[in-house]
Amino acid sequence: MKLDHIGIAVKDLEEARQTYLKLGFQVGPAEELPERKLRIAMVDVGGASIELLFPTDPDSPVGKFIASKGPGIQHLCYQVPDVAKKLSELKAAGVRLIDEQPRPGAHNTLVAFVHPASVGGVLTEICQHQ
Amino acid sequence: MKLDHIGIAVKDLEEARQTYLKLGFQVGPAEELPERKLRIAMVDVGGASIELLFPTDPDSPVGKFIASKGPGIQHLCYQVPDVAKKLSELKAAGVRLIDEQPRPGAHNTLVAFVHPASVGGVLTEICQHQ
Repeated sequence: MKLDHIGIAVKDLEEARQTYLKLGFQVGPAEELPERKLRIAMVDVGGASIELLFPTDPDSPVGKFIASKGPGIQHLCYQVPDVAKKLSELKAAGVRLIDEQPRPGAHNTLVAFVHPASVGGVLTEICQHQ
Repeated sequence: MKLDHIGIAVKDLEEARQTYLKLGFQVGPAEELPERKLRIAMVDVGGASIELLFPTDPDSPVGKFIASKGPGIQHLCYQVPDVAKKLSELKAAGVRLIDEQPRPGAHNTLVAFVHPASVGGVLTEICQHQ
């Protein structure tokens, strides 16, 4: 497993893009992910990325996160060669899963979420680039 | 700038070490950082690290973070070649700083914190490995 990206919930995507440009990073354009009710932009932080997450619907998971906790880091995602195999291993190790099976993610990935209760309060995603 | 580590506040350091071992990562031993009122352990997540942060004093910054928000991701740290130079650049760009000057950090580093109000609610550290 290797860190893939850090998901950061933001209240204004363009302002967040400008913030990370000001810090000195390369920032990608805004992308629409209607199936996740998100507008995102990727920031290259050297090997891993930040995924800036703007909720297009307040009832989406990221919308609810901002409403309850304010903007900030929402999840960590690790890449693995085989999400289905990793899910089996985690389940056998007693780790609580949100997704028992991989599902399609953004940018041609397969993804699954691990329950934060099993990872010290950190919402944890695993992904496989196809 | 390149991601150096993700600081995660934990309620039980040994339990957190076991969690990241169970996820499949290499996890370092517990280390005492009395000047920061922390006991920490490093997790290798491929290029970057997770710094598991257990507060040895509830009045420390990480102790207060856990009291108000619960355990979870507390800060992101980026490495730069020259912290003092980066602080000057950030200040000139209108970024609000917590530390105007670099100060000694763990593992022979110089560090400084940027105010979360200037980074969309994310407490942001920059560090220089010496």
